[in-house]
Amino acid sequence: MYRDPSDVNRVASLGAGPIGGGWTAHFLARGYDVNAYIHDPAERDALMAVVETGWVSLTGLGLALGASMDRLTVTSDLAEAVEGVGFIQESGPERLEIKQALYKRLGEIVPADVVIGSSTSGLTMTEIAAECETPGRCVIGHPFNPPYLLPLVEIIGGKQTDKAAVDWAAAFYEVAGKAPLVMKKEVPGFVATRLQEALWREALHMVANGEATPEDIDIALKNGPAPRMAVQGQCMAFHVACGEGGMATNLDQFGPALKWPWTRLEAPELTKELRDQMVDGCNAMAGDRHFRDMAAERDRKIVAVLKAVRDG
Amino acid sequence: MYRDPSDVNRVASLGAGPIGGGWTAHFLARGYDVNAYIHDPAERDALMAVVETGWVSLTGLGLALGASMDRLTVTSDLAEAVEGVGFIQESGPERLEIKQALYKRLGEIVPADVVIGSSTSGLTMTEIAAECETPGRCVIGHPFNPPYLLPLVEIIGGKQTDKAAVDWAAAFYEVAGKAPLVMKKEVPGFVATRLQEALWREALHMVANGEATPEDIDIALKNGPAPRMAVQGQCMAFHVACGEGGMATNLDQFGPALKWPWTRLEAPELTKELRDQMVDGCNAMAGDRHFRDMAAERDRKIVAVLKAVRDG
Repeated sequence: MYRDPSDVNRVASLGAGPIGGGWTAHFLARGYDVNAYIHDPAERDALMAVVETGWVSLTGLGLALGASMDRLTVTSDLAEAVEGVGFIQESGPERLEIKQALYKRLGEIVPADVVIGSSTSGLTMTEIAAECETPGRCVIGHPFNPPYLLPLVEIIGGKQTDKAAVDWAAAFYEVAGKAPLVMKKEVPGFVATRLQEALWREALHMVANGEATPEDIDIALKNGPAPRMAVQGQCMAFHVACGEGGMATNLDQFGPALKWPWTRLEAPELTKELRDQMVDGCNAMAGDRHFRDMAAERDRKIVAVLKAVRDG
Repeated sequence: MYRDPSDVNRVASLGAGPIGGGWTAHFLARGYDVNAYIHDPAERDALMAVVETGWVSLTGLGLALGASMDRLTVTSDLAEAVEGVGFIQESGPERLEIKQALYKRLGEIVPADVVIGSSTSGLTMTEIAAECETPGRCVIGHPFNPPYLLPLVEIIGGKQTDKAAVDWAAAFYEVAGKAPLVMKKEVPGFVATRLQEALWREALHMVANGEATPEDIDIALKNGPAPRMAVQGQCMAFHVACGEGGMATNLDQFGPALKWPWTRLEAPELTKELRDQMVDGCNAMAGDRHFRDMAAERDRKIVAVLKAVRDG
């Protein structure tokens, strides 16, 4: 039903804010023709400022062949914006009644085989598409700020979304140079924000309790876990740090530490099932790579990251 | 009482494991003469393997003038190891009776004006130095793994530690190319591990609850919060993301979100005092830099980090 994601040449990006503008810049840099919809013609300068800011970074990361800011069309006519596009990224205001009205209209004017991705961070697609005639192709494709820079897109449908639309969105975002993550369940904060929020709330507790200052928090992160987390994530960081034994050693040996007051968040019960899910997941990511090779790669990349932060 | 930290030329690193070996490699790379103490002569190869692994990364980061692996002396004679050194980094086994006996002996043979830093992650200096005659110069200097790569050193004394020794250790680690963080209070997990542990426990909950796989966790971190956190930390990331209003806008506008179930960790009450501590801390870090300049620097460095991870 949906076209091959590689056949999409023109996309629409709806919204003139930092998220909409960020998406516009990203798609332009990946070589798409982009129709940018702004609600009010007066928003044009604001949109262009975001696009131009994003363009600097995207040029640094490397533009796709043929990518050009000249391939941008800005319009405040919604029908014109979605005409002939192969995908729509919607980054309108985070107000349910505005989104519902927008998706109702999109349902009327956009062919049902064109997937629509919403940048929403706080609403569900079940709510957003409640008045849309064709909710099957509506998904959430939630970026991470700044969206022109960070590759993550967290994807989930609503109750009426076709599984095929979710799969298509994941494949399309991948083709479009993003790092898609299809959510297993609808959960507030998605994956990335939940992880960051747990850390953030622990940080606020530490400041409130006189254990650290905001500067201490940032010094600790920048010089400690963050560079390694940027290279490996936290699961593979522990897997590789434990050498031959990997995540199994980490959990079997240090499992009791999950009961220690190393944070105010209580850990889940370390059941056999959870232990095996963690171990199997890390083994699958490692594949047939030896831990020494992964450690060497980690070190090489952390060196590059530290130099990037120092000299970048 | 203590010498000028810049006058230290020779240090002792006690311990043949990944932490002791990592410290040895670090001090060598910063141009120190290093006496490495190993408990058993048979540990020599294990130590050298760690030092050689570390040396690769340290060379990548840039060696100090005159730095050389030839400036390493390995001995299993403790008195010989500490003879004539200006600082001692202790990374022995994490068993209280072993550490206590070690510090008792060090108290007898090391001049009282030489600071001793312990790499311990789970014991307090009050406990460790309980049998030491000269506990005033004994501090914890807790590195982050891998210690030859990540700059963070978290510093705290015990009940009998001189404040001057804590200050000296912070100054010395800075001279020695580390990023020292003097803890405000003794708190389990220090700062960095507490923050990481909150995130880790939320990750385990998500896997246990079928909300994400280990691979999802790592994809989310690497492509979302981690690269930005490596550049700015989390406090300045929010401060700069909120533009003109900074952390004040972040807390005043998004404060209610601290009550939302975006993680399983409950946030502290956002009192006026906590709000002001966060705002003042971020304003102090920002100094007179405009948020646009900080955002441009953030973007430039995130581009460099993403390329480092991709190509490094």
